[in-house]
Amino acid sequence: MDSTNQYIQANKDRFLEELIELLKIPSVSADPAYDQEVAACAEVVKDAMEEAGVDHVEICPTAGHPIVYGEKIVDENLPTVLVYGHYDVQPADPLELWDSPPFDPVIKNEKIYARGAADDKGQMFMHVKAVEAMIATSALPCNVKFMIEGEEEVGSENLGIFVAENKEKLKADVILISDTSMLSNENPSITVGLRGLSYVEIELTGPNRDLHSGVYGGAVDNPINALSEMIAKMKDEHGHITVDGFYDDVEEVSKADREAMARAPFDIQSYKEHLGINATKVENGFSEMEGASIRPTLDVNGMWGGYTGEGAKTVLPSKAYAKISMRLVPNQDPEKITELFTEYVQKITPSTMSVKVTPHHGGQPAVTPTDSVAYQAASKAIETTYGKTPIPLRSGGSIPIVALFESELGLKSILLGFGLDSDAIHSPNESYGLFNFFKGIETIPHFFKNFAANS
Amino acid sequence: MDSTNQYIQANKDRFLEELIELLKIPSVSADPAYDQEVAACAEVVKDAMEEAGVDHVEICPTAGHPIVYGEKIVDENLPTVLVYGHYDVQPADPLELWDSPPFDPVIKNEKIYARGAADDKGQMFMHVKAVEAMIATSALPCNVKFMIEGEEEVGSENLGIFVAENKEKLKADVILISDTSMLSNENPSITVGLRGLSYVEIELTGPNRDLHSGVYGGAVDNPINALSEMIAKMKDEHGHITVDGFYDDVEEVSKADREAMARAPFDIQSYKEHLGINATKVENGFSEMEGASIRPTLDVNGMWGGYTGEGAKTVLPSKAYAKISMRLVPNQDPEKITELFTEYVQKITPSTMSVKVTPHHGGQPAVTPTDSVAYQAASKAIETTYGKTPIPLRSGGSIPIVALFESELGLKSILLGFGLDSDAIHSPNESYGLFNFFKGIETIPHFFKNFAANS
Repeated sequence: MDSTNQYIQANKDRFLEELIELLKIPSVSADPAYDQEVAACAEVVKDAMEEAGVDHVEICPTAGHPIVYGEKIVDENLPTVLVYGHYDVQPADPLELWDSPPFDPVIKNEKIYARGAADDKGQMFMHVKAVEAMIATSALPCNVKFMIEGEEEVGSENLGIFVAENKEKLKADVILISDTSMLSNENPSITVGLRGLSYVEIELTGPNRDLHSGVYGGAVDNPINALSEMIAKMKDEHGHITVDGFYDDVEEVSKADREAMARAPFDIQSYKEHLGINATKVENGFSEMEGASIRPTLDVNGMWGGYTGEGAKTVLPSKAYAKISMRLVPNQDPEKITELFTEYVQKITPSTMSVKVTPHHGGQPAVTPTDSVAYQAASKAIETTYGKTPIPLRSGGSIPIVALFESELGLKSILLGFGLDSDAIHSPNESYGLFNFFKGIETIPHFFKNFAANS
Repeated sequence: MDSTNQYIQANKDRFLEELIELLKIPSVSADPAYDQEVAACAEVVKDAMEEAGVDHVEICPTAGHPIVYGEKIVDENLPTVLVYGHYDVQPADPLELWDSPPFDPVIKNEKIYARGAADDKGQMFMHVKAVEAMIATSALPCNVKFMIEGEEEVGSENLGIFVAENKEKLKADVILISDTSMLSNENPSITVGLRGLSYVEIELTGPNRDLHSGVYGGAVDNPINALSEMIAKMKDEHGHITVDGFYDDVEEVSKADREAMARAPFDIQSYKEHLGINATKVENGFSEMEGASIRPTLDVNGMWGGYTGEGAKTVLPSKAYAKISMRLVPNQDPEKITELFTEYVQKITPSTMSVKVTPHHGGQPAVTPTDSVAYQAASKAIETTYGKTPIPLRSGGSIPIVALFESELGLKSILLGFGLDSDAIHSPNESYGLFNFFKGIETIPHFFKNFAANS
């Protein structure tokens, strides 16, 4: 172990420089305008793996963005860790809220600022560097396979096809993923639960063209008013989602688990100050941490319609749009929820309007057992490098492919995330702590050692 | 009269060519990007007046866009008609819905298609040409003054200042405006009522930055959901506006007037087909025509927030915005309504949000008496050229300056409009019928003759 750690310490500066280069590539998977950059990013990941000593590195084309695959087989009889990550990033807008350009990485107060710094380039790259260190010091204790995709931020549809078609190639004993965050550097935690996701877009149409609000206002219904009323109908005054059947399959978390969760340090005052809000809004009967993890949600992620330019335009618009996502908890099925939501939207659409509901992408919720060899290997690795046993926590985020890996490959995933909520992923000024980046690289070899020793 | 009409018939083609040139100028007053074009448009209007034989034509600068003023004094002892119009236009977007470029006029099936064709360049220009014809044929029976502004579409604030500062210069006996429409060419009408306007913008702020909807969703309130709920609270299930005190000053129209209004031809089926809607939405107890004219309204003219680009972004946004306008009826005061609205918005803003309400512009409602010399002169002029007595009608639109003229100059306005609702003003593919353009030029001299003879 020491030699591996020495190698890491000796190469820190180079690791950081390499990450900076990776972050300069605007690999935005949601926007076709960036297709070239996404492809270029896959090439850079491939090169990094080869330089790390990984064999058979290949760029696997898909109907969308490619998947970078590579493996290092030490001995067929040893266990295999399949590392998953993604090299694509969220769109960077609103650009005006960034203090520095999103794809021009800047290091300030011990953090690296750039889109994708934490989600997921920085965390994915830790694994490439950790494996490089183990190989370079002949300390790789088992086999490793890499599967790094370019469509995580848009639903991983093609990864699903790739996984289904390459079960033999992807044969492994556990999947290792760093795409989540910890409570804090003082209170390390491991994510043992993820919410699922249903994401839909609503197009509401009233009159067949934009109208003069003076000539027609008062006789013709307004799609923005109507869509607002429909969105208001999606939750009741207790914060309950009113979509028929929405809660039918929701797994009720046990009193014991909720008490364990409540022991995690949480300061409501600093939480509100950090976000600049006077009050939170949680479903009746639940705490903020519960609302953001063990309960399903319905959020409008984007809405637009009518005149949004400067000044005043008195238009009664023809159309209004909303992008709405629902975070789901164990036992809720995204496809079923999307159907229920669509039916509900049709039910509450007024007779003055016509509606179109388009599903974007979904993902299954997932839970990891804490008594498994893999979880224990991860827990002990963090104990070694952080000096504290990590708290097992449910996260509010979604990594749809975790459920996919379980159903297609029969493998559990270990969510060994080193980010922090303050990383502002999906937001302007996304960042990743240098401490977290290096601590991750140091911790991963311990996971490999613990896992190889006990499998 | 004949010689004037002969002059008009002989110069029709030139009049149309000149209008086309005027329509090519994108004089969008709401968007600073077009400031140059607005100024250029004022110059073209000035030149046209001078060519018409109007004296002392000047471009009067204001804090915003300039006002073009000119006059032709035949005899101090004769009555004076003050012609008002505007050369600015609404923004043209959404551009993708135009069949031809908004500022590249096209003549199709007897209509001229362009932004501003009917509102108001085409109608304003009729007066310049009618006065040209009267002067050219020595048939101008009284004095005429022109006041053509460039800020009607953004609230005419600087016109208000100009009028207050130039009462002597603007001395007249009546104000003549063509900026409204008729029921149809078969059923000519004159607008005798206008709705007022209150226009405000709401900025709702939740968290101090865009957040990850997975990490924070369920604990932190969403400004788009919240704004939607607030907008839903602005009307009840009967279509009544719920802003406290909103209806306090509303003038209830007499049963007789409502019966007269009901006699105007209105085919609900073709109305709905024309707009492509299955159902209208009117305040309980009122007809479509009443809802669109004698009752106040509340419409969201634009709304935006969060991610509105391609694909899916799971963001819990920091801000949501809405542009909201209220059409007002006689006795409702725009400033009072704006205050009531602002108080109501603050009242219904949840504790999770902070709100900013910015008033854009407003306008007083107005009514014209049908027994006045000026109204009768207009009614007879239309009777002469259309062969039918026009129906006096309340319109749903707003021309804020009509009330301003009454309060500042003590003058009533005659709304001698030649447009049609099918002109699609403020919408893509705005048009103006060639029949209406020429018929207007022919009718205006009759108004001057009738008015001069009976004043």
